[in-house]
Amino acid sequence: MKVDVVQKILKANDDIAKWVRAKFDEYEIVCINMISAPGSGKTSLIESVLKQGLLGVRIGVIEGDPETTRDAERIAKYEVPVVQINTAGGCHLESQLVLQALDKLPLDEIDLLIIENVGNLVCPVGFDLGENSRVAVVSVTEGQDKPFKYPRLFQTANIVILNKVDLLPYVPFDVNEFTQGVHAIQPGVPILHVSCTRGDGVSNWVDWLVGQIVPGNKKNA
Amino acid sequence: MKVDVVQKILKANDDIAKWVRAKFDEYEIVCINMISAPGSGKTSLIESVLKQGLLGVRIGVIEGDPETTRDAERIAKYEVPVVQINTAGGCHLESQLVLQALDKLPLDEIDLLIIENVGNLVCPVGFDLGENSRVAVVSVTEGQDKPFKYPRLFQTANIVILNKVDLLPYVPFDVNEFTQGVHAIQPGVPILHVSCTRGDGVSNWVDWLVGQIVPGNKKNA
Repeated sequence: MKVDVVQKILKANDDIAKWVRAKFDEYEIVCINMISAPGSGKTSLIESVLKQGLLGVRIGVIEGDPETTRDAERIAKYEVPVVQINTAGGCHLESQLVLQALDKLPLDEIDLLIIENVGNLVCPVGFDLGENSRVAVVSVTEGQDKPFKYPRLFQTANIVILNKVDLLPYVPFDVNEFTQGVHAIQPGVPILHVSCTRGDGVSNWVDWLVGQIVPGNKKNA
Repeated sequence: MKVDVVQKILKANDDIAKWVRAKFDEYEIVCINMISAPGSGKTSLIESVLKQGLLGVRIGVIEGDPETTRDAERIAKYEVPVVQINTAGGCHLESQLVLQALDKLPLDEIDLLIIENVGNLVCPVGFDLGENSRVAVVSVTEGQDKPFKYPRLFQTANIVILNKVDLLPYVPFDVNEFTQGVHAIQPGVPILHVSCTRGDGVSNWVDWLVGQIVPGNKKNA
């Protein structure tokens, strides 16, 4: 019974995700869905991109959190369009919430829409938001066991960011075991090492994002 | 409709939690439910207690994870009774899973049962596991905004552990803002500062656990 209900919810989500995706196609928007545990640095990764700009690519942001507009306020400082979705305690974003948020964004002025999901390694994974690519973020303080414990995220990620590498000298994190774990689940998926505070790897992260903009998808820029 | 279903699931969980609680009463077991984001150090906090012992209190552990038996293997090294619950991708423990796990534990040889929930700041909060006390864990690398974004956990916690304080010199974490955030949600809830790697505050954590064992609840120890 419970499984049935969950499958109906997922089916409804997938149906609405198709409309969202069609809207992205109509407006020639590339959409990225960022998933991580709470506090892994998703907002800082978006800020690191906004600080240096993206070769003329115009960015919009949707922030997801159970409560508060703190992350949207951080992003708004960079004067890009941003919408905060509060899930009122809910553990993940759904395509319905994204569809509603699109009404509040100037879609014809956005080339790249970055969605920051609710901090959670489990629930967001099953919910297609209409995105083109999915980014999994893990910080080195969380331990190298995360791909083994949360394989579904790493199966579906287009790229994995290992964040906060400036803290590697101070934490017991085995980079090789982490890398092997990720590649055992999805061989060949790129893994970027990044530190937003020190700047390591930010240019690789920016390059990857620019590479997501397929020719013809960048409007008037 | 979805809300209805969720309420039915929560009601069923609460009903089974009552049986679990009755079982704990029968065997004079005190139960602790530990909740945090993935990688905040719940397993290390349990290990820190097992390393030094607990004044004759006999400990049992239930480990919850979406996949793998890694945490149970870490705990088993200390030769205490431990059961791993794998949720097969599920995002939280439910009382039904705990009830099943109790069958695999020597209940008459346990004074304190520590349940490590699935790493997740949202979903575990709504599910009573029959515990006597709830421990919320946040590590300093996750940012001081966690109580504001995830208030429901901090409303229901009997104690908050701020973990990995050895990393404070290397991360932008505002201890005062965190403390004010927690106490705005639940005035007076104790907040312990702990570093399992360096040993800070472990004795306070142990003292708090010992204090949970009400007189008469410690058997033959």
